Amino acid sequence: MKLTFLKSDLLNAINITLKAVPSKTTMPILECLLIEADDEIKITANDMELAIETKVKGNILEKGSAAIDAKLFSEIIRKLPDSEIVIDEKNENITISCEKANFNISGRRSDDFVHMPAIETEEHICVSQFTLKEIIRQTIFSIAPNENNKLMTGELFEVKDDNLKVVSLDGHRISIRNVQLKEHYENRKVVVPGKTLMEISRILPGDADKDVMIFFSKNHILFQFDQTLVLSRLIEGEYFKIDQMISSDFETKITVNKRELLDSIERSVLLVRESDKKPIIINIKDSNMELSLNSMIGSMREDILVRHTGKDIMIGFNPRFMIDALRVIDDEEISVYMVNSKAPCFIRDDEGKYIYLILPVNFTVSH
Amino acid sequence: MKLTFLKSDLLNAINITLKAVPSKTTMPILECLLIEADDEIKITANDMELAIETKVKGNILEKGSAAIDAKLFSEIIRKLPDSEIVIDEKNENITISCEKANFNISGRRSDDFVHMPAIETEEHICVSQFTLKEIIRQTIFSIAPNENNKLMTGELFEVKDDNLKVVSLDGHRISIRNVQLKEHYENRKVVVPGKTLMEISRILPGDADKDVMIFFSKNHILFQFDQTLVLSRLIEGEYFKIDQMISSDFETKITVNKRELLDSIERSVLLVRESDKKPIIINIKDSNMELSLNSMIGSMREDILVRHTGKDIMIGFNPRFMIDALRVIDDEEISVYMVNSKAPCFIRDDEGKYIYLILPVNFTVSH
Repeated sequence: MKLTFLKSDLLNAINITLKAVPSKTTMPILECLLIEADDEIKITANDMELAIETKVKGNILEKGSAAIDAKLFSEIIRKLPDSEIVIDEKNENITISCEKANFNISGRRSDDFVHMPAIETEEHICVSQFTLKEIIRQTIFSIAPNENNKLMTGELFEVKDDNLKVVSLDGHRISIRNVQLKEHYENRKVVVPGKTLMEISRILPGDADKDVMIFFSKNHILFQFDQTLVLSRLIEGEYFKIDQMISSDFETKITVNKRELLDSIERSVLLVRESDKKPIIINIKDSNMELSLNSMIGSMREDILVRHTGKDIMIGFNPRFMIDALRVIDDEEISVYMVNSKAPCFIRDDEGKYIYLILPVNFTVSH
Repeated sequence: MKLTFLKSDLLNAINITLKAVPSKTTMPILECLLIEADDEIKITANDMELAIETKVKGNILEKGSAAIDAKLFSEIIRKLPDSEIVIDEKNENITISCEKANFNISGRRSDDFVHMPAIETEEHICVSQFTLKEIIRQTIFSIAPNENNKLMTGELFEVKDDNLKVVSLDGHRISIRNVQLKEHYENRKVVVPGKTLMEISRILPGDADKDVMIFFSKNHILFQFDQTLVLSRLIEGEYFKIDQMISSDFETKITVNKRELLDSIERSVLLVRESDKKPIIINIKDSNMELSLNSMIGSMREDILVRHTGKDIMIGFNPRFMIDALRVIDDEEISVYMVNSKAPCFIRDDEGKYIYLILPVNFTVSH
């Protein structure tokens, strides 16, 4: 195999596929990128859960394929002059040349590489790159960090008529985002691994004018955008019935400037060590919201002006859960709905684009 | 004590003094900043080797002093609105207020704080902030990383007539920078701890129009600039006699584009793992310099055009030592002087502003 590339084209393709190279594995072939040159040049990585394939512009002087250590390959290409790069493979011996620099490294048997499985489906939906990147950012923080409950490490993607609902939950909170689709699609519910979504959101350029096609099969989901395919296994099992956890009843509603509320809570966590679980106590009386937090380190108190309807209330939350939700809401003003100090609060907009449910925590009032 | 500050003034002073707060210590008082308000407001930190004191603009409503955990204090101030901050201390109880936010934290006994020792000397030299920052950057990389030989963890500052010579060495290489001073000063030789120099270079704004006054006493060195004093212990003992290690004899001289040489060596280290000690082999023949490196990972070879006088030579170096020196030389072209493959090479300019000595390493030639 003998190929030539512009450095920038090759590096871009490497950066995309690198996301599917496992950092730890007992199978060295998985640490490789597969370069294939037939009618066009493709680079592929596959960690067995997630596979990424991207096409790259270049000249094919001699067809063939090569498997090459991903990390080393990426480091070498990154350091070469911004010029034409020649990749020449013979019997797994790979030469990389650029101007007067020559590198010689051993590749691996490209036949050992585990190819991306072909998925047989025409069923797909279409969203803009921008939208997909945004909904991932706006929900990914509330997946569960450990594998105790596998379903909680993924996100529900539910297509119903012309709506895509994306849900994540970790037992303490639920994040829901709804996206209006341009067409009606067949109804579908799948659970996508959180890791897949994080990697996709890293490689998605996020263009509002360009689309991502999302294909579904029984065990896989395939994202197609620009020159790239990202294929991931789905998480098996039935996702949690979230409709019955969501209620629109409330006793107290406040509307508050999001920035002010977020800044205040972010200051409060300075007094909370990582392992500590001190709640922030919110005391709403008339149009005043008092936030306070007491810990071993010290105490803080702050007042914020709010618009308030319904009962006064005093309620405690894990301040970090509040911060996570507030950070991904772009509205200048937000509404928070509460029932009592034991029931979840809801941060939601009037159009139903987002719902963030957060369970309160017990607290003792000190004076 | 009761003081008011603009957030930006206070934060700037905290950032400067934080550099002398130890990350680990068994004495909690050393983790504190001391705030003193008498005729003016000063903030001090002292880790017993290095002390930093800086004056800060603010209003003194009530004189006094307070010792407050440096990390927590800095985090709180950073997160407060960009507005007036009130610090109020009563019986080691410290209240920090800004707009509607109130923090309450416990301070420590300010009497326990170890003050900066007063140094009695009028002897000093004067260099620009820019110059001091530069000479530190250009030499600090070749101090020894461990304390086996205490003197090697510091840098020689030698004042001789109107010249300041700064030297660092680690047993494999020597870095020397000379700075022309504006006046004649009394001759002096001290060894300044590397850590002190690193912290100073971080807090020095590096203005070419502003000066740093450097005072010497028997056991201390004091740097004074802007509103700040940095006091450090010196390292005791007599520094290495470097004059006898430096020679101007050579058999081979090459002149080469610095960027080209540096880029090539930086690429070569991609093939060298951290623990590995593979040399880069430089083979100079006529006007060609061939660089090559062979390791477990692979091999590289590259040619660079040079101007060459004297004998041909083949010599091996630790590529990282070459990189360190080349990175801090700002000249577009550099000259390298060599005797034979066992003797040190010298990278030096004609004006005597810098000398970088690097010992060669043994190598075997593979074909």
